[in-house]
This record gives sequence, C-alpha cells and structure tokens, in this order.
Amino acid sequence: MSFSYGKNIRLSIFGQSHSPAIGVTIYGPPAGFPIDFDALQAFMQRRMPGQGAHTTKRKEADIPEVLSGLVDGVTCGSPLTAVIRNTDVRSSDYQQLWDVPRPSHADYTSYIKYGAARDVRGGGSFSGRMTAALCVAGGICLQLLQREGIKITAGIVQIGGVTEEAPFPAYPSKKMLAAIEEARQDGDSLGGVIETTATGVPAGIGSPMFGGVENRLSTAIFGIPAVKGIEFGNGFAAADIRGSDNNDAFYVDGDAIKTKTNNHGGILGGITSGMPIVFRVAFKPTPSISKEQQSVSLLQQKDVPLVITGRHDPCIVPRAVPCVEAAAAVAIYDAVLEPKSQI
Amino acid sequence: MSFSYGKNIRLSIFGQSHSPAIGVTIYGPPAGFPIDFDALQAFMQRRMPGQGAHTTKRKEADIPEVLSGLVDGVTCGSPLTAVIRNTDVRSSDYQQLWDVPRPSHADYTSYIKYGAARDVRGGGSFSGRMTAALCVAGGICLQLLQREGIKITAGIVQIGGVTEEAPFPAYPSKKMLAAIEEARQDGDSLGGVIETTATGVPAGIGSPMFGGVENRLSTAIFGIPAVKGIEFGNGFAAADIRGSDNNDAFYVDGDAIKTKTNNHGGILGGITSGMPIVFRVAFKPTPSISKEQQSVSLLQQKDVPLVITGRHDPCIVPRAVPCVEAAAAVAIYDAVLEPKSQI
Amino acid sequence: MSFSYGKNIRLSIFGQSHSPAIGVTIYGPPAGFPIDFDALQAFMQRRMPGQGAHTTKRKEADIPEVLSGLVDGVTCGSPLTAVIRNTDVRSSDYQQLWDVPRPSHADYTSYIKYGAARDVRGGGSFSGRMTAALCVAGGICLQLLQREGIKITAGIVQIGGVTEEAPFPAYPSKKMLAAIEEARQDGDSLGGVIETTATGVPAGIGSPMFGGVENRLSTAIFGIPAVKGIEFGNGFAAADIRGSDNNDAFYVDGDAIKTKTNNHGGILGGITSGMPIVFRVAFKPTPSISKEQQSVSLLQQKDVPLVITGRHDPCIVPRAVPCVEAAAAVAIYDAVLEPKSQI
Amino acid sequence: MSFSYGKNIRLSIFGQSHSPAIGVTIYGPPAGFPIDFDALQAFMQRRMPGQGAHTTKRKEADIPEVLSGLVDGVTCGSPLTAVIRNTDVRSSDYQQLWDVPRPSHADYTSYIKYGAARDVRGGGSFSGRMTAALCVAGGICLQLLQREGIKITAGIVQIGGVTEEAPFPAYPSKKMLAAIEEARQDGDSLGGVIETTATGVPAGIGSPMFGGVENRLSTAIFGIPAVKGIEFGNGFAAADIRGSDNNDAFYVDGDAIKTKTNNHGGILGGITSGMPIVFRVAFKPTPSISKEQQSVSLLQQKDVPLVITGRHDPCIVPRAVPCVEAAAAVAIYDAVLEPKSQI
Repeated sequence: MSFSYGKNIRLSIFGQSHSPAIGVTIYGPPAGFPIDFDALQAFMQRRMPGQGAHTTKRKEADIPEVLSGLVDGVTCGSPLTAVIRNTDVRSSDYQQLWDVPRPSHADYTSYIKYGAARDVRGGGSFSGRMTAALCVAGGICLQLLQREGIKITAGIVQIGGVTEEAPFPAYPSKKMLAAIEEARQDGDSLGGVIETTATGVPAGIGSPMFGGVENRLSTAIFGIPAVKGIEFGNGFAAADIRGSDNNDAFYVDGDAIKTKTNNHGGILGGITSGMPIVFRVAFKPTPSISKEQQSVSLLQQKDVPLVITGRHDPCIVPRAVPCVEAAAAVAIYDAVLEPKSQI
Repeated sequence: MSFSYGKNIRLSIFGQSHSPAIGVTIYGPPAGFPIDFDALQAFMQRRMPGQGAHTTKRKEADIPEVLSGLVDGVTCGSPLTAVIRNTDVRSSDYQQLWDVPRPSHADYTSYIKYGAARDVRGGGSFSGRMTAALCVAGGICLQLLQREGIKITAGIVQIGGVTEEAPFPAYPSKKMLAAIEEARQDGDSLGGVIETTATGVPAGIGSPMFGGVENRLSTAIFGIPAVKGIEFGNGFAAADIRGSDNNDAFYVDGDAIKTKTNNHGGILGGITSGMPIVFRVAFKPTPSISKEQQSVSLLQQKDVPLVITGRHDPCIVPRAVPCVEAAAAVAIYDAVLEPKSQI
Repeated sequence: MSFSYGKNIRLSIFGQSHSPAIGVTIYGPPAGFPIDFDALQAFMQRRMPGQGAHTTKRKEADIPEVLSGLVDGVTCGSPLTAVIRNTDVRSSDYQQLWDVPRPSHADYTSYIKYGAARDVRGGGSFSGRMTAALCVAGGICLQLLQREGIKITAGIVQIGGVTEEAPFPAYPSKKMLAAIEEARQDGDSLGGVIETTATGVPAGIGSPMFGGVENRLSTAIFGIPAVKGIEFGNGFAAADIRGSDNNDAFYVDGDAIKTKTNNHGGILGGITSGMPIVFRVAFKPTPSISKEQQSVSLLQQKDVPLVITGRHDPCIVPRAVPCVEAAAAVAIYDAVLEPKSQI
Repeated sequence: MSFSYGKNIRLSIFGQSHSPAIGVTIYGPPAGFPIDFDALQAFMQRRMPGQGAHTTKRKEADIPEVLSGLVDGVTCGSPLTAVIRNTDVRSSDYQQLWDVPRPSHADYTSYIKYGAARDVRGGGSFSGRMTAALCVAGGICLQLLQREGIKITAGIVQIGGVTEEAPFPAYPSKKMLAAIEEARQDGDSLGGVIETTATGVPAGIGSPMFGGVENRLSTAIFGIPAVKGIEFGNGFAAADIRGSDNNDAFYVDGDAIKTKTNNHGGILGGITSGMPIVFRVAFKPTPSISKEQQSVSLLQQKDVPLVITGRHDPCIVPRAVPCVEAAAAVAIYDAVLEPKSQI
C-alpha cells in the first residue's frame, strides 16, 4: 500500500521532491489503447500554477517520459511507467528543515518514522510534487473512462470564506482570487472545498462493506496532501435532516431506474446506483506561511521560532482540482474493472 | 477486500441478516493474549438497543461462539473465528422486498450487482446486523490496544438538529432522546455525528500517501452502513480559516514534542504525531421509515408506492458509537503492528 | 496471506485440529450458482481414510455446515462460510508434544514463531485436518469450473519405490497398498508423487512473472502439508534434454492452435496455452512413525528419545489426491476469473 | 501481483525488452541503509554473458540509474526506483515474430491474452531481459540480508546431461561449458538445475499454509523465465524413501537446536527451522534454437516452418544463477521483515 493504489488497475508512485525524478507505474492498463498525449499534457497543465488567472506568469507543465508499456503510443498490456525529471535538485542548505519541523507539515512525523535519514529536501515524498505522478496515472484513467462513457469533473466550492454557487468553477472565481491574493499579502494561506461529480458510471459497481466505492474513493483522495475530510452526497448535512427528507425516491425513467433526488451521492451500500457520484473534499490551508511560527529544534530539544523563507503557494486548492479528478479517476476505473462476482 | 480489512491484522467478516450465522475471522492476533470475554460482552452490549436510556426494555447482546484461535481462552496465533447465530431466520414473505427496493437502502444496487439470487431477507449482507461481527473483532482489538496504552472512545456530537458540547456523551442525552422519540412518533428517522478520539497512539505510525492513517481509518469507517462523511481534526472547518490559525505550533513538553493545538487531529502526512487522533463521522438518517415512500417495481418496471412495515430503529447513531470505536480499533491496531520501515 | 489464498475468488481458512471447529470462508463466489451438496459430500469422502481399498473400515466424511452465502442452496453473492465440527477435542495430556517436538513436524518451528501459547494439540493449525476446509472450498470451485468446461483430475504416480504407468490411478494400486502395509508393519511411513491434469482451461489465462499460473498453483499446492516439490510439464526432466526435444511444435487443428507435445505442461510465460495443464507434486513420507526417534526437550534443552504413540496414517498420499485437486481448483478458478487486462 | 512481489518489502518491475528502459521500484527498504553500488554492480555483472569462462568476449553489466529513494547513496525510506536503459530499441522488422510464435516461448500465449497490441519485440515483458530489474532489487536485498547475517548462494548442479558434485560451482565447469558449446554447434540448447542455500536465516520465519517460506520462494522463483520445477530439501527424492530415513532428528548444540540431517531443507510447516534453506530449481532448455521448427501463422491460421535467426544463448543456466539468488533474496527478506504475530 502506501505509494500504491488499486487492485484491478494499480498505480505505484515513486520519487521525492528533489530526487532525480518522480514517476508512476500503472499496472493493468488494457492492451490496445492509444493514449492521447496532447490531452494528457493539457490535463497536466491544469495542475500548474497561474492557470485560469489573468496573468502572464504561466509555467509549462512537466512532460512525462514513458519508459515502458507502449508500442507506437498504444498500450501493449505491459506496465506503463512514466517519469518526470525534477529540475531543482540542488544540494542547497536544508539544515534548518532537517532540524526544525514546519508546523502542520510532515517534517516531524516523517522524522519519527524514518529517522535522520529521511529526505527533507522540499518535503521529500510528502511533497505536493508527488501529485504530478498521480495526475499522469489519473489522466490516463480519465481517457480510459471516457471510452466507457464516464466523465469526471471537479469544481471549487469554497476558498477560505468565499463560496460559489453550483455549477462550481474549475478555476477560482475573481472573488476567490482576491481572497487568495489578500492572504498572500498577509503572509498567510487559505484552504477550501472541492466538489467532484462522476457521470455515466453504470449501476452495480463497487462492493459491500470495506470494498465500497466510498471506501475506495476515500483511500485514493486522502492520498492527496492537505485533504482533511470527505463527504458523499448530502454528507454531514444529512445529519441535520430527517429520513423522509434525505431518502431518495426511486422512479422509472424509460428503461432506467433513477432517483428523484441524489442525496445518496450515487452510492448505496457501497455500490453505485447509476446516479452521478458526488463527493466533496476539504483541504486545509497551505501550512507553509511567511509569518513567524513556533516550532522546536529536534537536535536541541527546545522551542525555537521558525520563519519559512522562499515563495509558497498561498492556496493549493486551484491546483488540487485536477488532482482530485485524477484520484477519483483511478479509484472509479479500478472499481469499474472489477469482475461483477467479486466481493 | 470488501468483507476483509487490514494487512498486519486482518478481519474477514461473513454472514447475512437471515443466514444461519454471522461471524468474523481475525487473522494475525498475537499469540499468548488472554481475551477478557466479560469485557468483550460488555462492549457488545453497548451495540444493543435501549442502552443508556431509562428504560426496562433492554435486549441482551449476542454472545459470540469462538470456533478457533484459542487454547483455554488465550490466543494461540491461529486465526480466531467467532460466530453469532441469527435467531430470526424464518422464511417469511420477502416478495415485496425482493421486488420493490427501499429508498436509500442497498436493495436496488445489490440487485444490479448480484441479480435475482441476492439475499434480500433483512438486507442480507448489507444489514446493520453485520456490525455485530465488526464489534467482536473491534472489541478484541480494543483490548490489544489497551495493552499498548492506547484508548479509543467515541461520543455523540449531534443527532438531527440537537448538538452537544464536548466532552461528547457515549449515550444520547435527554434532548437527543427526545428528538429521536419525536421522529419515531412521526414515522420518521434521524442521523447524526459521532466524534472519536484515540489517545496514547505513539508518533510515527502510518505511511505516506495511500497508506496514511486517514486513508486506513476512512476505509474501515465507511464499512459501517449509513456513514456518508468523515473528517479529521478541524476537517471541513479548516477550509474556513487561514493557515496561521489552522497550523499547530510545536513545543517541547519534557521529553515529548507536542502541539499547542490539535487542528491536525493527530495525523500529519498520513503519520501520527503523538497527539490524540480525532475524527468525526456523519451518519445519514435511518432509511427505513414508516411514512409512505415512492419506489419502483423491478419486475414490472413501473413506479409504485412503498410502505415499510415492522419496527425500525428511528436513529442508529447511539448504537453506532461502539461500531465506530470497533472500526477505529481495527484500523489503528493494524497500523500499530506495521513494521516501521514499511511504506 | 497465510491462511488465505486468491485474489478474484478468495478462500480464508481457520481452525485447529482440536479447536471446536475448522472452516473456510469463500469470498467472491458468483451469485446464482446452485451448489451440488451430494457431489461435494462425495468429493469430501475421497479425503477419508480407507477409500478405494478392499476394506470394511471406512469412515464417513465430515459434513460441512454452511453458515452464510446461500439462499435455498444457491449462492447469493455473499461470502460463503462452511464449518466442520471437530469431534476429538478432549483436553488429554499434550505435555509431551508441548515439550518434545516430533522430527519433521511443525512442532518446533511453531514454538519458535508463536511461543508457548501455540496450540500443539494434534498439530494445531499445521494439522492435515485443515485440508478438510481446503476440500470444501476446492470442491465448490471444481463445480464452478465444471460449468466452464474445465475438469481437474489427479492420480498417484508413485508411492515409496512403487510407480505406476499413466493413466495414473486415483486410488493406490494393489502394489502401492502392499508397500504402504509393509511400511505400517515396520512402524514406518512412505511418501509419493501425484500428477494433476486440468483440461478445458482456455488459452490466455494467467499473467507474466509473479502472476503466472505456475506461481499461483505453487502457492496453493505448498499450502498442503508434506508437499516438498512441484514441477510443470517435463519439469526436472527438461534439464536433461535438448531444446529441440523439449520444444513443443505448434500446429493448426481445425479452429484451434495446439502443440504436438505438451512438455510445457500447458503454460508458457505464465499464461495458459490451451493445452492441458499438467503438474506433479512430491510428498514426503508421513513424519509420524512408530519407531523411536531422536529429539530434544525444549524445557530442559537436552536430547531425549521420542516414541510417538497412537495410530498414524503410514502414507497420506492416497488421501492427498482430492486435496491436490482442491488446491488446483481454487488456483485455476481464481486465474480464470481474472480480467484479461489485469497484469 | 504479476509484476509485483512481496508484502513487507515489495518490488514492482516494469519494462519490455525493447521499450526505452526497464526498471524496478522497491517499496519498503528500511531508511538509513548505505547501498554498496560497487557490490551491486559486481552482482549485476554475474548476470552478463561470458562470465567465469576463459574468454575475452565479456560484456559490461547494465548500470542502473537510481531515480528515487536515496539521499547521498543512503536509503531515505521512500520507494527506490532504478532504471536501466535499453540500448537496442530499433524498430526493426518484427513481422515474422508477430505472426509466427516461437515454440515454447510466450509469443502465442501473450497474443491470446493481450491481442495484436502486445509487444513482440525481443519477447516484450516476457524477455529474460526483465531479470536485470529483478537482479537490481535482489542485489539490494542481498546486502540488507547480509546485515542480518543471512547469506544466499547458488550453484549449478546440472547442465543437460552433465552433473557436478557439491559444492556446486557458481560458474559452469569445463565439462558443462563443453556440453553447452556442443549444443551451440548443433544449433540446439540445454537446460539445467540450480541449487540454492540460504544460511543464517533465524528459526521462526514464515507462516502456515499459503504463507509458508516454500510458497513464497516458489512464487518468486517461478517469476524467472524458463523455470519449470522447484523442490525443497530432499524434494522429489523424499518420495522414494521411508519416513525413518527422511525425518531429521533434533539435537541440542550449545544454545541452539539443530537437526542431524537437513532433508527438510530448513523449512517445517512453512516456517524456518534455523537450518539452511536449501532448494533446487529446474530450468528448461532455451526455447530459441537455430534448428528449423514447426509453428503456425496466426494470421493465416496454417502450419508454417520457422527458422529463428540471430544469436541466442544456448544455455541460460549460468546467467540464471544470480537471478535465482536475487529472487530468493527478495522472498526471504520479505519473510524476515514480517512481524512475528502475522499469520
């Protein structure tokens, strides 16, 4: 587990922020599928900073190099490995990071788990950089799902105190951008909420108990750094209302059976109902802020103040939108591939 | 997956609501542990209806029969299987259930997945009855965790519109009971929110990305019927505030490193920080209500009204408290057993 | 792992020789399959002593009780659990067994692994008794395979120094029985070799490298106590001959592609070729013999002589024939269920 | 599964013979271990052709590039990925290979499994080339095992009709080389047998039934192309003798308990006894031979003769010696890392 996800299709991620490369191997892509690399590149681009904003400061997306799994751009059934080179691998001074853990980062917990040998440079394997590898795998799964008529789209519900109405925008609205800019100027940061919808998923996908679609999506989604909550359909709001308001009435619509409302978020008993899968994900504010914070020296075992230098993204929510789509795509495609009898 | 959970200790659940028995096999309990069956029975009792209320109508808990894994009440290293006989296995008339799916139950989705052969009696394997098997495994894990100095307790934050203040009660308060009673009289039902705290978990447990403690707890918790959301620490509320408010400052406390606040809920980068693990779980209102509802006939493929007869629990949240503790105990013990190097 | 096998269908075994019961849960049987319990019982009967011999001393097979997974004898998609009660669970004197490990049994190694708490009674979970649970699962998989046109049969190639010619008999020949009887009278025991053939397996089943049919069959077969070797097709004999003699020429036979010889045993690159799967399994002689042997006292850490009392099967090979078929059935059915794309 | 192996340490292999690169990711290497790259390179060198022979025609081993998992040559706890570039990736004419499967190769079975999109160039993922990736992972595990005092060495027992006496040579003897040379001149090939011994493995490693060390080693070893059999300790020879000859008497040797003979090959009930683990592996003759063979045209569905051109290794057994050590190292290290209680 840990860096791997899935049973019927399986992605295995590797790399650190400052290792020579990060990458992913996808085990189980069906043979004979022509990958659309332009579409993949466009999807990767959405993860880069400065997208959707009226700005000239855009950064081109990482270009993955495929090492295996293809013959002339078509999957051949072998594991597909793609790597992305890390450009910033200077052996600069990481002494402070090594000694003084940043609050609400994994610096301290990784130290306890792996000891002094852990890679602290840029957060090591805990870096948001790892989601680039997730997006390669997810971007390919999105194409595979598209062939099955399944579409996954995410939008931003909330950033800090600013909320939007449905349909939620894929890029932050002006109000949201303003809030982010304000936080940046204060040396501070913001979190937010992303809602994801998957349409076209046939009924009958998923399994009872621990193999439910909710369980699988959660496992995938909590693999994205900074995620602190997930809810399906009505989610926490269902706790506020009565069964008669929360239950979704069935009705016949032509050949299909549908529900009049979708408070269940497309999943009942862990199994898809054929209605859209809908879930929301909460992101905490970026823990890297410019303001002075209180921390400790691990070497001297004493309290010390910490000022994090360098540029930091004051809100990762906009860039997390494709990451959530990617994680959802992997989880849903894995469930779709599962033999019906499997429990 | 599906009916199984865990890697270092593994529980495998089986049974249906009306099969001869339900049960669980626990793979990997350490040898030489004397199980306290009185404590286990008391724990199982908390799952029964009517607990904590001023009522004479109490039902004794199911008593599990251990088929294997013990010698004179002490674990021997072999898989431990416990079964609970189902007393209500009459072949009564389930024709309606078979044909007309109850809204927001798994009747329809299980039909699509397993076809006409599925067991509809009492919900089959989707019944809340299955949590009795989970509680056997969880109750034993709670005892194993206790030996490691780890304690898990859950309390009720909210039932319907009624909320309580921390420390959250293990049994519903009078206000909560009144709300449940009111819903019952209306032929309706309520959901709620449960908060769980695990103390004594050492720092350094869990793994990055998909192997994080959040991922593992989610997978276990969504195995409980009616769960629709989970959040850790500040959870969704973290989306509302700034990083400077959400970050948890480190400080030295004697030999230990702690955080002044616990907005991270004891988990950073998927790995425990040594602070209490805190998470909240949202339960939807019981989908079985007495009010007439809209559904469909699967055989005739047409809309039909549905009235669910029989007695139903208008709020399963009180009985879910030990179930959440059980699922958390299995997930946390599984993580605790994991070798440090494992990723 | 350990007591569990399989990915697409999964059996999980539990129990000890002298625990209240042994049993098995099968996860993933397709819904809607009517199990033929008479056929299952007849299959179980083949595992009992005294079969096929001209003897009046027959013992009726254990009758499994199905606790879950069925509705009116038909699989419903839920996990199928079957238990067999152990009749001999007296708390007799096992002090000697506890202290003095029997040579070539698991008494010593289980002591090192599980410590003093291990169950030594009758060999605990290392007992040949556990294969009864394997045969329940395997017997059901044989029926499921039969529906797919796949048949698995095993025969005895060799017992001690006595070999037979193909087609190998399912029950020991007179010569073999005589050799067994001779060993019994000498207070000694014999091993042997079993050959298994699976016909009707379509080409294209299995996966490369560690997911090959040879890997999977080995994992399942070494789960049977006393197995010490396995070979596919020509096996070890292939080491003696040249490629031109060992290679299997392809030819067209109507719509099918076949090979003129089957030295590859139906598996190339881990994937089935459509030719019969053929493999041989070596069993060591039963380690329980009446002759005095040299062992040690674990408590006193000194050499002591050991005389094993009671009746023992001087050759388990005849009873192992259905066990090998059962293990093969589970492994092959698991591979058959695997989605094609899966690697 | 398939391209992945292990539970406590896990290797995931990728690549094809003619893809840009092959490689392996090792999940779970303990942090803080300095890899000896000179030793790794020397180990890799043993897999190259022409080793140990009195020849000037040596080829330098592939040099793996480590993409992740290290900081200054020391493991940091993150997954370790190493890739080896393929130099021969010309898009030469593979039309014949694509249409006419080579006897006893995976050309035909991979076609049935993956269809026309499969990679036939050089055997794709079924190529012996993939064992270079296995050797990277195994070479690192050998170093990790060495730290635990565990040593694994393999030797050649037999090549074609030529056998050697123990201690078996790591490189083919003159007699063996002569037999190989004779087969080469005849346009033919030879197989053989390799024996492996692991010393220093503590007692108590491994698990019952399907989790035994024999099961795990088999799964790993059958991942090497051309393996058709495996036996532990006395193996198939145990079928010939009586229990009194095959049983291994225990005795006390200082603080240790040992057995006077080692017919059990260091494993009893799936668990190590502390005696050396000993097993033998049978390799079939290289299926690529120069002699004309009978095959079929998949496109025209008719019999056609086949002449395989190019240079082929007439016996891969010498080069397989480090591969067997590598597979054994991964399997044994995975078992060593397993928590004691785990079953």
